[in-house]
This record gives sequence, C-alpha cells and structure tokens, in this order.
Amino acid sequence: MGDVLTAEADLAGRYRAVRALSVALVAPLSDADASAQSMPDASPAKWHLAHTSWFFETFILAGRPGYRLFDDRFGFLFNSYYEAAGPRHARPARGLLTRPSLDDVLAYRHHVDAAIERWLPDFDAGARALVELGLNHEGQHQELLLTDILDLFARNPLEPAMYPPPARLAAHAPESRWRNHPGGIVEIGHAGTGFAFDCEGPRHQQLLRPHALAEALVSNADWQAFIAAGGYRDPALWLSDGWAWVQREGIAAPGHWRHDANDGWTSFGLAGRRPLDPAAPVTHISYYEADAFASWAGARLPTEAEWEAAAASEDAAGGNQLDRPGPVQPQGGSDLFGDCWQWTMSAFLPYPGFRPAAGAVGEYNGKFMNGQMVLKGASCATPRGTSRASVRNFFYPHMRWQFTGLRLAKDL
Amino acid sequence: MGDVLTAEADLAGRYRAVRALSVALVAPLSDADASAQSMPDASPAKWHLAHTSWFFETFILAGRPGYRLFDDRFGFLFNSYYEAAGPRHARPARGLLTRPSLDDVLAYRHHVDAAIERWLPDFDAGARALVELGLNHEGQHQELLLTDILDLFARNPLEPAMYPPPARLAAHAPESRWRNHPGGIVEIGHAGTGFAFDCEGPRHQQLLRPHALAEALVSNADWQAFIAAGGYRDPALWLSDGWAWVQREGIAAPGHWRHDANDGWTSFGLAGRRPLDPAAPVTHISYYEADAFASWAGARLPTEAEWEAAAASEDAAGGNQLDRPGPVQPQGGSDLFGDCWQWTMSAFLPYPGFRPAAGAVGEYNGKFMNGQMVLKGASCATPRGTSRASVRNFFYPHMRWQFTGLRLAKDL
Amino acid sequence: MGDVLTAEADLAGRYRAVRALSVALVAPLSDADASAQSMPDASPAKWHLAHTSWFFETFILAGRPGYRLFDDRFGFLFNSYYEAAGPRHARPARGLLTRPSLDDVLAYRHHVDAAIERWLPDFDAGARALVELGLNHEGQHQELLLTDILDLFARNPLEPAMYPPPARLAAHAPESRWRNHPGGIVEIGHAGTGFAFDCEGPRHQQLLRPHALAEALVSNADWQAFIAAGGYRDPALWLSDGWAWVQREGIAAPGHWRHDANDGWTSFGLAGRRPLDPAAPVTHISYYEADAFASWAGARLPTEAEWEAAAASEDAAGGNQLDRPGPVQPQGGSDLFGDCWQWTMSAFLPYPGFRPAAGAVGEYNGKFMNGQMVLKGASCATPRGTSRASVRNFFYPHMRWQFTGLRLAKDL
Amino acid sequence: MGDVLTAEADLAGRYRAVRALSVALVAPLSDADASAQSMPDASPAKWHLAHTSWFFETFILAGRPGYRLFDDRFGFLFNSYYEAAGPRHARPARGLLTRPSLDDVLAYRHHVDAAIERWLPDFDAGARALVELGLNHEGQHQELLLTDILDLFARNPLEPAMYPPPARLAAHAPESRWRNHPGGIVEIGHAGTGFAFDCEGPRHQQLLRPHALAEALVSNADWQAFIAAGGYRDPALWLSDGWAWVQREGIAAPGHWRHDANDGWTSFGLAGRRPLDPAAPVTHISYYEADAFASWAGARLPTEAEWEAAAASEDAAGGNQLDRPGPVQPQGGSDLFGDCWQWTMSAFLPYPGFRPAAGAVGEYNGKFMNGQMVLKGASCATPRGTSRASVRNFFYPHMRWQFTGLRLAKDL
Repeated sequence: MGDVLTAEADLAGRYRAVRALSVALVAPLSDADASAQSMPDASPAKWHLAHTSWFFETFILAGRPGYRLFDDRFGFLFNSYYEAAGPRHARPARGLLTRPSLDDVLAYRHHVDAAIERWLPDFDAGARALVELGLNHEGQHQELLLTDILDLFARNPLEPAMYPPPARLAAHAPESRWRNHPGGIVEIGHAGTGFAFDCEGPRHQQLLRPHALAEALVSNADWQAFIAAGGYRDPALWLSDGWAWVQREGIAAPGHWRHDANDGWTSFGLAGRRPLDPAAPVTHISYYEADAFASWAGARLPTEAEWEAAAASEDAAGGNQLDRPGPVQPQGGSDLFGDCWQWTMSAFLPYPGFRPAAGAVGEYNGKFMNGQMVLKGASCATPRGTSRASVRNFFYPHMRWQFTGLRLAKDL
Repeated sequence: MGDVLTAEADLAGRYRAVRALSVALVAPLSDADASAQSMPDASPAKWHLAHTSWFFETFILAGRPGYRLFDDRFGFLFNSYYEAAGPRHARPARGLLTRPSLDDVLAYRHHVDAAIERWLPDFDAGARALVELGLNHEGQHQELLLTDILDLFARNPLEPAMYPPPARLAAHAPESRWRNHPGGIVEIGHAGTGFAFDCEGPRHQQLLRPHALAEALVSNADWQAFIAAGGYRDPALWLSDGWAWVQREGIAAPGHWRHDANDGWTSFGLAGRRPLDPAAPVTHISYYEADAFASWAGARLPTEAEWEAAAASEDAAGGNQLDRPGPVQPQGGSDLFGDCWQWTMSAFLPYPGFRPAAGAVGEYNGKFMNGQMVLKGASCATPRGTSRASVRNFFYPHMRWQFTGLRLAKDL
Repeated sequence: MGDVLTAEADLAGRYRAVRALSVALVAPLSDADASAQSMPDASPAKWHLAHTSWFFETFILAGRPGYRLFDDRFGFLFNSYYEAAGPRHARPARGLLTRPSLDDVLAYRHHVDAAIERWLPDFDAGARALVELGLNHEGQHQELLLTDILDLFARNPLEPAMYPPPARLAAHAPESRWRNHPGGIVEIGHAGTGFAFDCEGPRHQQLLRPHALAEALVSNADWQAFIAAGGYRDPALWLSDGWAWVQREGIAAPGHWRHDANDGWTSFGLAGRRPLDPAAPVTHISYYEADAFASWAGARLPTEAEWEAAAASEDAAGGNQLDRPGPVQPQGGSDLFGDCWQWTMSAFLPYPGFRPAAGAVGEYNGKFMNGQMVLKGASCATPRGTSRASVRNFFYPHMRWQFTGLRLAKDL
Repeated sequence: MGDVLTAEADLAGRYRAVRALSVALVAPLSDADASAQSMPDASPAKWHLAHTSWFFETFILAGRPGYRLFDDRFGFLFNSYYEAAGPRHARPARGLLTRPSLDDVLAYRHHVDAAIERWLPDFDAGARALVELGLNHEGQHQELLLTDILDLFARNPLEPAMYPPPARLAAHAPESRWRNHPGGIVEIGHAGTGFAFDCEGPRHQQLLRPHALAEALVSNADWQAFIAAGGYRDPALWLSDGWAWVQREGIAAPGHWRHDANDGWTSFGLAGRRPLDPAAPVTHISYYEADAFASWAGARLPTEAEWEAAAASEDAAGGNQLDRPGPVQPQGGSDLFGDCWQWTMSAFLPYPGFRPAAGAVGEYNGKFMNGQMVLKGASCATPRGTSRASVRNFFYPHMRWQFTGLRLAKDL
C-alpha cells in the first residue's frame, strides 16, 4: 500500500485504500477480541469499524435520494458523541454489543462503501470535503483501534500478541543534543490547501522566546534512570493532581512495564511481552509523568508552537514513513513523526479566530477544548500519511494507553 | 435427554449427559456472545464452561499421577471464589478474557472429560462424591449461563433472541386458592442418601404456626394490578432499603418489562421481546419487590420451612419436568418447581448444626450465609432433575436477573 | 437520678427525668462538638436533641388546639426517616446545620416540654402510649448520642475525652464457663403490660435445640489471642462479605484499638485513650468480626431465642444497673445487660404475626427488617432501665461504632 | 481600616491590620459555624484562622531559638498541602476537628502574633519577604473564609445571613460598550518591586491580536436572558465536559439562584436571600457556564494577556477600593476589580521562564498548574489592596462557589 492520504491518488482510490486498511487491521482478531471494551475510554474494534462507516452514512449518504439505511437502529448504536445527530448508546456499554456480529459490521461497511463509490463521481465539493474528513477521521480510529486492542490484551493475564515480533537490529539511542531556536514571531497552524482538521487553524502568529529542543526523544534507558533515582516517589517533582494520581493508582513505571527478578524490565506491546529496548523511545506515559520527568531532568516540555516551528524547519515528510502500523523501524533523521506522540506543555485551547463549523460536524474538535493537553507528531500506530506538523492530538493528563512519549525543551 | 441427575443412570452416563448439556446450551451463541460480561454479578458463558471444568480439574484431577494440567494459567483465570485454591482473576474483569477462545475452552473441556471418563471406574467413594458435587455445581452454572446471557441480550438495543418463541397454548392463570397448614413441628432439610448441597442439612425440626400458602404463583396480571394501584410509588409498602433502591434505580416494573403506547406491556426473555402473558408467573423481581407486593396484598412471603413442608406433602417430582431450558410448558399440578424461584422471608443462615466441609470445597455455601434471602423451587432455566424440596437458592435482596417470582402466604 | 423508666414513677416524673438526662449528656460538649457529624451513619448531638423533641411535637402536639409549632421549618430539619411525615433534610448533610444553634435547640426542647407537661394530665390512653414511646425513643437516641460523639472524637487526632476516666479496680475476667440448655419449646418476645417496641412482639414459641451459652462475654484478652493467631489474615474464618470488608477497609483490630511499640495496645473511649483492659469485654466489633471469632473458637454466636431464654432464666433486673452512661462498674452476676450489645446469629426479621402499626409511627422498626442482625442486651451507654430481655437491637453486619461485643454459644 | 497592604504602612502595622481583619471576619459566626466544612473543596472558618497562623509559625518561627511551638500536634492539623512540611490531616475531614475550639485557635493566633511582633524588627530580608508572603496568603484565605461560609449557609435550609443587607441605591447596569485594542506585542506579568505571588512572573512579552473587551461585566439581567433563551438546554453551546456537568448536576441557573412562582428570581448571599438585582454582575458561575454564555452571545472570553493589557491602560487602583468584605458599592469607573473574579480562556500554566522557589514555599502555586483556568480581577470578598493586574487566580472549570463572573471579548 502506498502513501494513501497525501499522495496524488484520486479520492476514490484513497477511499478504497483507507477503508481496506481498517479491515486489514482486524484480521488477527477473533469476533470476541473485536467486540470487547477494556475500559470506558476505549472502544471495541468492531465498534470502530462500524462508527467510521456510520460517519460516512450519516453525514454524506443519509437523506440522499436512492440511499437506503443499512439498519435504522445503527444510528443509535454507532454515533459516538454528536449531540446534533441524536441520542446514542452509552459509551461505557459498547462492549455489550455482541450483536451485530463482526460479519454484520463488515456487511455494513460493504453497503456504505458501495454507495460512496457509486456516487462519488457526482459529489459536489462539499460532499467531497466530507469524504476527505471521513477518511482522516477513519485514520484516527485506525490508531485508536490498535491502541484499544493493546489495552485489552494488556489486561488479559495470557498476554496475547496481535503481531509477530519484528526482526530488528538493536537500535542505538541517539545522543541527546539540543537544537537551538532564537525566538521571535513564527507562524503556526495549517497552511495551504491540503486537508486539515478544524482545530489546526486558523494559521496565526506566535511569539517564541529563545529556546532549545532535544533532538532525541526520551528513551527507555532515560526512564529507567528516572525510576532508579526515585522519580515516582518524590512529590516535589510532580504536579499536585499528578501526585494524587500516582498514589491513587499505585503508578511506578510506564504503562505495560513489568520488572521480574529474573527477566529484568519487560514491556508489553502489539507483539506481546518483550524485553525492554533501552534505546527505544519511552511510550505509554501520562502528561503527569512527562512533566515530572522534565522537572527531574532540569528541563521542561516544549510548547506546541516551539514543536511546530521545529517541524517546519526540516523536511517533515521523511519522518513519517510507516508502511503499516506496528513497531517502527529505526531510521536516520528526525523522529518528530512515527515513534510516539509527544506531550507538550500547551493546553488544548482554540487558536485565535477559531470557530467550530455549523452543524454536527462542528462537534468534531471544538467541544473538547477543555482540560486536555496537546500532543504533536505521530506514533508507530498512526497510519502513514495522516499526520502533519499542524496536527493537534489531545488527551487528558492522566491518560496513557496511547503511544505517548516526550521530547525535552529548555529556555536559552 | 432423560432425567439426567436423579435417574438410575450410572455416574459415567450422567457425567456425559451433564457435560453435553453445557455445550449444547452455547450452540446459539457467537464467540463474542460467549465472551461478554453484562455486569459484575454475571459471568461470560465461556467462563461458565471453563469454570465448571476447572472445578473437576482442581478438586479431582490435579495432582493425580498421570494427569497433565491443560494450561497451568487456567487456575488463575477460572477459579471463582475459592480462597484456598489460590489467587484469581478479578470477577468484574471476566469479560476482558477474549482469549482463550471459545474453541480453546471447548478443547479444555474435552481434555478434562477424557481424564475423568478414563479414571472414573477407579475412583474411590470420595472422588465419586466430588464428581457428583461437580455435576450439581455444573447444573447451577447452566442456569446462570442462561440468565447471564439473558441479562446481556437485554442490555443490547437490538434485543437478540437466543431461542425461537415456543408454540404454546394460551395459559389460564390458576385461581388463587389457599392451602392451609395446621402448624406444629415439622422436619426440613435434606434426608436420605441422594445428593444434596452442604447447606441443605442437617435435617432438623422447625416449629410452624398455623398458616396458608397460595396454590398459585403471583401472575403477571396480578403484578399489573400492583403497578396500576401505584405500588411502586407508595413508600409505606416498602422496606427502607427497598424504597431507596426503587428511587435510586428508577424501578417501576419487573426486569425487562416495557410499556409502549401501541403495544402495551411486553417482556424480554430468551425468545426475545414478546407481549406480556397475563397468566404466566411474574419473574425478574427482587426480594424488595416481592415483599412490597405481599404487603400490598395484605399477605406475606412464606418461610422456607413453610414452603418445604408444602413441598413434602405432594409428589414434588411431578412439578419438575423440564426436558430442556426454555419457557416451561404449562402443566397440571403443582408449580412449586419449574416456573420460577420463589422468594421466601427467610434469611440464608446456617441450619442448626451446620458445619462447612474442610478444605476448599467447604467454601461452597457457608461463607455466603450473610445478607442474602432464600429462594425455593426451580425456574424454567433450571436443568431438569437438579432441584429438590430441600434446595436453598439465595441472592441479595436487590438482585433480579434470575427467573425470580413469588407465592403468597398468610397466618391463620 | 433513679431508675427512671422502669420504676413506679408516674409518667410526668419519668418524662422530666428522661428529658433532663438528654440535656445533661451534652454538658461536656461545645456548640461545635454538638453540631458535627462524623459519618453518614451518625448524627450530631444537637440533632438528637432536636429530633427527639420533634418526635413529641409531631406525633402528639401538632394539630392539637392551642399548640403553636416552635418553628415550622423544623419538621423538615429534624424528621429522621418517616416518609409519612413528609420530606426531610438529607441525612448525610446533618452536620451542615450549624443553625439552629445549640441554644436554639434547647429553647425548642423547653417549648415542647412545657406543652407536654401542661397537657399530660389530660392525655387519653393513646397519647400517653405515644409519650411512653417517645421516652423510649429518646432513650435509644441517648445511647446514639454518646456513640456518635465517641466516633467523632475518635476521628480527631487530638483524641478529646468526654468524661474523666473512672477510678476503677482492675477487673478480673470471669472464667469462661458454659451454661447448658436442654432445648425444647420456649416462649420469647415481649410479655406483660409494660412498654415494648413493636418489633419485640408478638410473643411466640420457638423450638430450641440442646445448646450452651458462655457465661462470660468475650474479653479483650481473648481478642488479643485471636489477633495473635492471625485471625484477621485467614480467609477461612470469614464470611465472604466479611473478608471483602476486612481487605477493603484494612481492618486488623477492633474499632479504636491501636498498637504502639512503647505502649502496647490501647483503646479509645469516652474517657479518651487508655491502656487496654484485658479483662473487660471486647467492644466495637462488627458482626463479621464476631462471626469470625466464633469460627476461630470452634463455637458459634447464639440465636436471639437462645439468648432470650437464658435471660428469662435469671433475674435480669440485676444485670441492668447503670446509674449513668459511662464505663460500667464491674459487678457480680450476669453480664447480659450493661457491658455491651451482643451480636446474635439471627437476622432482624418480623416475629410471626408481626404487623406494623398504622400511620407514621408504624415506620418505627418494621421497615428495617432486612439485611441487619439482631443484638441483645444493653451496653454501658444504654440508659438504665431502658433495656429488656425482649429488646431487639439491630445493625448492619459491618457496623461497629456502637458498644458491640459477643458471647459464644455451641451445640450440645 | 485603611488600605492595609498597598499603603506605605510599615510591615508591623500591616501585619497587625491583616491579622485583625481575619478575627473580625468571624465575629458573626458561632463556634459551630466556624467549625463546619460544607464540602471537600471548602474549609472551616476556624481552620482558615489556624492555617494562616501555622504558615507564619512553620515557615518563619519554627526552629528559631527561643520559639516554642504552641502545640506540636497543630502541624499535622493545619498543614494544607505542603508535602515538604510533612503529613497532614485529610482535607475532607477538616470539619471533624471540633477541637481545638475557636477559643483555642484564637489563643494560637495570639501566640504566633506575639512572637512575630517581638522579632519582626530583627528579621532579615528573607524573613521579611516571608512575612509579606504570609500576609498575602492570609488575604487569600480571608476571601476563602467568606466564600466557604457562604457555601455552608447556602446548604442550610434556614438560609442564615452573615451580614445585614446593605442600604444601596438601585444600580443601573452600565451599557455594554466595547473597548478596542489594536493588538501587537505587550508585556504582562508582575513588574516592579512590590509584592507578587511567584506565578505572576516572570514579566514577559505576549503577542495580541486585534480584539475588543466589553466595558461592562455580564449582568444578572443578561443571564436571565440566557436562561430564557434555553441556554442551559442546548448542547451546541457547551463544551463536552461542561454539558456532562450540566446534566449530571442538574444545573439550570447560577449558584444560589432560585425561582419561585411568587417571588421570581432570588439569589442567596452573605446578606441572606434577596431579590435578584438585574443590574449587578452575575456571580457564582463556573467556567463551563461562562464559556457557554459567551458562545451564545457570539463572543468569547478574554485571554489573560488581553485582560491584563486592558488593566494596564487604566488607573487600576481606583477599581479596588473595598473597605471591607461584603457587597461592593457601585462605583464610577472600571469594574475590573471588586465585583467578581472574571474567567478567562487561558489555562493556568507557567509563564515562560517560571521556576518554583526551592523548599516548601515553592509548592505555593506551581504544582497547581494543570487543569485549572485563570481568573482575573478581584471580587467583593477580596480584601482591599490585595489584588493587582498581574494576579492570576485559578479554579477548576466546574467550580463556582467563589464570586466568579465574566466579561466578554471578541476578535476584531
């Protein structure tokens, strides 16, 4: 599969490629795997398959002459959070939907795909823009599908693997050098005519101070040093809410890490439980942990504007070359994209001049601009071609079931 | 299938029949259906299949020369609550065990069955008693398997049916006559040499007062009258904890009942949503509801001794004729067994002289003798031949996902 | 003060004595002490003073020609749980009622007392029975007032004392002898014409088996042996709900016990923190603990009928000689009354033929007949003269903020 | 009392004035009023009195030769959240501390005051800076003391008043005009040598866009229009977390508002329940409500930089003239200070270059820089002279027990 979203492929070709990828992702899963929900924040894989189809059906197909809803009860089941699109099944109860079956959901996808592909040549610009949005929306859910399955498998004492472990050469952790920036006014936010989510704009100026960003992501070896230094036991390093979280949840290491007397540190990923790779970037850390680590290191997290300015100054495309989800191959050059989402110290708030779109689609991002922190980059689970320097991912500060890591920054 | 547990069949034949019934019960279920857990009180169907096998493996096979554990991790996964048998997977997380798959669990059953059947001819009396206990234990889980699936399907907006609806003649609700008892000393508790659970004994004397029991179970029509009279809105009818439960949960009808302007009252069962049958016994009511109904009716619930005395005075066998789980056919004669479990006003406490058995098997019933109420009889989901007059079923007073109903009593 | 409730004193005299005792009890308390609520199960002392007055006002005075409500908002504030008496302030929020002040509440008491005393000579039998009920009701709240203050002070790191420690000779723990009973039919429940709460009747027959009761209460020294033997760490001794409670709450000793390296075991009471008296009866234990102790001791708890039969066979009056609340003086003879309430293995359920009274007063006991266990006797905080052999105190099995202990029983 | 904190008074004089104000504030309170805690976010008035004294004792006096701790148990009781100062009493249990009494706490204050006043002339610059910090800290607690009492009294069905209602002329709501700002680089943060909290600096540049701020605060009349337009029922106006909060808590009006058929809208304040003043600024609204109102009005909230730039452009001093806490007198000129704290759309995050101080005092603000929103200005309960343009107050977005309101902003 090529670079499905940013390449010159026509919209129909990209539609087919994105939709096929979702189906390919669930190939290793059983019907039960695809139906279970590990926690309220996660969704079943089957639900992701259905919800992404509901998105196309509801916002593009429904009401179009000649289109017949696949099942008029699915609107209730597979609406995620769009108040304007009507009532919906309670999120924490998605794992109880053992029916429709995975086969039923695949038939639903086929039904929607057939209608989109039939009518796509005749779509006007508005509908084509919604298809584009739907494809990028599906890219986000592809990543969530993988991270939600990881969370499910991590809670199973049998620790199943979704993929075989990659044959990989031992990575060498890059030396941690600082890249300086002189400060001044920069422009950030989406520019140009390509696709972007609403919250990536408007493009606008920000005033930066002189600062430096670390070239390398914080590694597992770095994090082992933090643990060994008592980082999880020193309240002075932590935000107040973070310290309460550490104590309440008994947190003492990144998500899925385990220490055995015989085996030392291991971590659990889509390829099962594996010895910890010291050179790999740390992942599955919360914002609280990222902030505490930075305090311990005498540094801080970057702002989103600093991060985006750094991304603009290099050929970002080279860092974003995943052919498929799964552990990323070490590669020369930047690791801005493709290893892990990187916590910033910026709260997810509207850019100056931001206005949500009218209608249900306007609920896409704006209503979440509260209490969450921005992450930049892309992870090993992000479909190739779907991230950009201007992408603003966001999660609550305690969440860490995504592939989340950090890069240090400091004032100059 | 004949009357598998009480007939003269030899132990090996009964073993095969009981074990086959469990597998037959899940035939209508998908892998996802069999893996989901609707609430902490319920368990996945797949878990019931595995746990009942774990029971035979742990208490009979494990440690026997020549027996190889099927998977040494299954002890952790499928122990229910036996502290003496070691640590175990958290009950509310059983629905996350999408692996082992249903096929894996069926292979586990085959492995255990082969070992039991090979060695059964050589078992001593102690081991044979444990096989007997295991079969009766599995009978209990067969009922739970059905009621847990019913609870799961009832929470699915698609309301799937497990079985086709039965072709049945309209039942006529029996007239509600009273059967008097003069009181005096009676004997209750298990007698004789057949199988009984530990809590059914010792047999002992109880002093009854003159009283009467209703011949008929309270029907759906009776319950509609209670609703129409405002029974769910009058605190004077309710126990204090019951009234708090009604208000907190917004209870206004038995479980799975729904009232639509067009369709009137319907209820949901293993055959899907169906019009309410006024003549059928009401089911899916809590102890709180049973007690409130009795207060409204100017009556009370029976004690377990009163109920058992009534059962002893008739040929109980005739009332317990289920060939298979599923809605019971109306039948002449007593409805003590086979329609629904009947709440009594007796708390589940030890009979005089009761002592739990030594070892893990002693955890079977004794440690639950607190806070729960006794139910007598058997329901439409109870495997034929597994109930007795002396059986003491028990649940907390707010629970109603079983087929639970009531019969009235009064003092004379 | 004499024996205010059981003596020959006329009703007016007893009214004055009981009402005066409540006021005397709060003398050591500040306005803040009297207003705070330590937990949802407890009430502020000031609230007890007001609620007991509300009882007289609502059920006897309100509506009587010439009576003016002291404050028409007090019905909302000081109704405890009487649904028939209208809506009420939420129980867990009683500690927020810093107004009315303690002085206001004392004025309220004076207003009610003046009206009762003026009209008492003219009251008919029904009203006199309600006065009697109100006085016994107030006796119950006097005990709760003391135990609620104890719970409040126990949660204060300063550990204030309400009373000075008694000058007492070291008690000698009585030898633990068994008193046998041959079994047979006995009568229990209230008899005669004196006052009793509704739930103490009807008097009725019960069939006892041959059994023995320990003459002595379980002592602190006995309990230290249970702790030393690992009683709190062995799940085999515990009810399932009890074991969950022990683990969830981290229970390892009776309420208010503390072990310091230097001081050994101490306990906290109304006279502050004191060295543990090995000979004194253990108190502040839950039903779960009482049951586990009995299992460990190879015994069981008595039934309420066994306990009452024992009380009937001795001169119960001698065991109930408290002149005032506070640590009881050791005394020769029975300790059935006056040291601590004694858990039985009987659930609090209606006696045969029990019917709640009509109207709000009928909510007194009947609606609590669910999920709670009966305690017999009386504690050091029970006002002298207010207990009887037929009294049925009741609490949920996890509760232990009262002076609760146990006496062992065994089958013969 | 003059303008105690900003005037030229020497430090000793200001110390006496601030400390005396705290004691004066509790004059209308009973011991019980001063001891109760209305919710975990609030503290008892007595606790505020003690904690502010503990601050001086712990950070300035403790360890100084010749100083004797008033009570060595008070460190445990009255530490708020300083991890470096040792363990502490659980925050939600502060209302259980009926001892020490209010008189004890006043004696504690006297003890601390005597020591500070004796040694103040000899204090070095570091100690004097800590006194300054302690006085400003106490100013913050004076406001909290008032708002916490308001919250307590609002939960009491008797609705007590702390102060008599002010004799005030009907205010005229100012016309809502916009004040434009051309944008560009501005400096914000504390400048100069006067006192400021750590989080107010470093002073730094921010880039503003052209925008306008409303001259007037949003009034009660404005809010009534929002309610009448269905603002609380339209999810499109709300942040996702805000909408969940509205539904979960049943929010339909600002805090303490009530609508009666006869009386119309009333609100509850320190002077009791009063008819709503349409011209007064709305208060007791959460960030969620402020944001929803702004969306409904087609505007937005200001950023903290925009607000501070506006304050810098006028003589802020004139707007901050409270002689005492209590409802503010309408005054000509700006209402930036003194009516209510004003929500901004800025998250409470560190200013560029911010570093917490070393030691326990460094826990003052930095560890709360997560999940909270900045408020600017000052309220009617803010002691005169304690606010500044650079002050950054902060609360979680659902909190509204403070005097919180809003001012609109828009892009140009």
